[in-house]
Amino acid sequence: VSIDTTRCSVGILGLGLIGGSIAMALKARDRHRPVMAADRDQSTLDYGLKHGVIDRGSTLPGDLAGAELIILAIPSGHIVKWLEQQACTLPPGTVILDTGSAKRAIVSAMENLPPSLHPVGGHPMAGKEISGIVAAEETLFRGAPFFLTPLARTPAALLRELERFVTLLGAHPLVVEAGAHDAMVGGSSHLPYLASVSLVLALEEMIGKALISRPFFSSGFRDASRLAAGDVEMSLAMCTSNRDHVTRALREFLKQGESLLALLEHEDDGGLRERLGHARSLRSIILPPRV
Amino acid sequence: VSIDTTRCSVGILGLGLIGGSIAMALKARDRHRPVMAADRDQSTLDYGLKHGVIDRGSTLPGDLAGAELIILAIPSGHIVKWLEQQACTLPPGTVILDTGSAKRAIVSAMENLPPSLHPVGGHPMAGKEISGIVAAEETLFRGAPFFLTPLARTPAALLRELERFVTLLGAHPLVVEAGAHDAMVGGSSHLPYLASVSLVLALEEMIGKALISRPFFSSGFRDASRLAAGDVEMSLAMCTSNRDHVTRALREFLKQGESLLALLEHEDDGGLRERLGHARSLRSIILPPRV
Repeated sequence: VSIDTTRCSVGILGLGLIGGSIAMALKARDRHRPVMAADRDQSTLDYGLKHGVIDRGSTLPGDLAGAELIILAIPSGHIVKWLEQQACTLPPGTVILDTGSAKRAIVSAMENLPPSLHPVGGHPMAGKEISGIVAAEETLFRGAPFFLTPLARTPAALLRELERFVTLLGAHPLVVEAGAHDAMVGGSSHLPYLASVSLVLALEEMIGKALISRPFFSSGFRDASRLAAGDVEMSLAMCTSNRDHVTRALREFLKQGESLLALLEHEDDGGLRERLGHARSLRSIILPPRV
Repeated sequence: VSIDTTRCSVGILGLGLIGGSIAMALKARDRHRPVMAADRDQSTLDYGLKHGVIDRGSTLPGDLAGAELIILAIPSGHIVKWLEQQACTLPPGTVILDTGSAKRAIVSAMENLPPSLHPVGGHPMAGKEISGIVAAEETLFRGAPFFLTPLARTPAALLRELERFVTLLGAHPLVVEAGAHDAMVGGSSHLPYLASVSLVLALEEMIGKALISRPFFSSGFRDASRLAAGDVEMSLAMCTSNRDHVTRALREFLKQGESLLALLEHEDDGGLRERLGHARSLRSIILPPRV
């Protein structure tokens, strides 16, 4: 593989929040880099062309052939189908990077591609409650982790090029095996979403829909429930494509909640204090508070 | 009661995050308004004096006598004790406002005060992961809800004055009965804290302490776990002073989580989609997404 990811041509499949933000970040760094996109929605492509985010757009995915680096920014389930059905028509030497949030099924479909293609799994840990190219921004990936999950056959030099590419977007590359990735995000990314959904659903049961629209929510509630506002189809795909790890994480989460409930019900305030203190110290290891 | 809360003298008991921020907000609006504070920690008072946040400081709570409006910004449990043991020494006509996060026990202690005193329950929905006067800021309450829970005997004119006062701090006053307040915050404020704690504890079980310190967390996880970083003693008091509503909320929350788990385990993806969609639409009623 010989590719220079600081200047190669890029083809983006799916010009939504992620795809659009990648295009913007690339053009912001170097407006001469060739960036094309394929999207089923012509008005999305028109928006991209009008704002100088892409040089060419097409509603036919096959038109991306010729780009040195192809980025798959469509929903996870579609990524697997595209890899199975369309990737093999690409010219030899094409490098492929995806952006799906669970990696085992995708990397396994990548393993089946002919050796002339160079696919690597990718997962930017960045998102928003709103989707589509109108929500895209060139700074979306700034400071965010960007997982890269190489295949057994991925050459070290290609992996280094993709780390450079991710860094260009403003993100921090993290190389990890697909299975380990899925276990990690099951707990750190998919579980928080389901916790947030449970929170909102519980609130409806507790205080009723009428009260919910009154403006008495703290910034704490706003933060804790933010993920529940995420796109439903994307979130559903995220959960079902990582079902084993997500259920394991949710089960563990409910176990922890049950044990807090027991401490509260038995008025074991010393025991409760210990758990709250332990959680606080763990949270400070995860991310030290910023003053 | 005759008080003009736009200019009356204010005595603050407990010059921490909340008390300090109130002092700062008052002085920022009118540096001539007399603001005094009592705190057991002399260095806190020195800090307040040095930064022009208070005019006088004392380590003796009794020295606040003489202030037209006394604000109780000490931990909830201490507020009840102070009301039972010290409030009755205050001069007739003193208005008292507290800032504890659960209101029934406090308002009930307030009901027992002599009719010459004018206590009203208060609860600013603002906070931070860090505490103490060094964390205080004059904008802490800007845009935040500030509950006021009047007593049966509270004159309407006094309530209006306190609404004006809260507005001066930048907050939105919300008048509600103490019991209704506690039910609402049990679900909307105390529950999110326990959900956040469960999340962090579950993560430790799932991926272990060593991995937790690796920088692979999304902004989603950061938001969902932020409340777990809160002060332990304050959070414990918050849970135990509202134990009935908090346990009811936590039980409902776990029930919702169990039902999501069942949908995942039975691969009922249509049912799961329905719940995720419902949560998303509820979240949009709670707080419309800001673009």
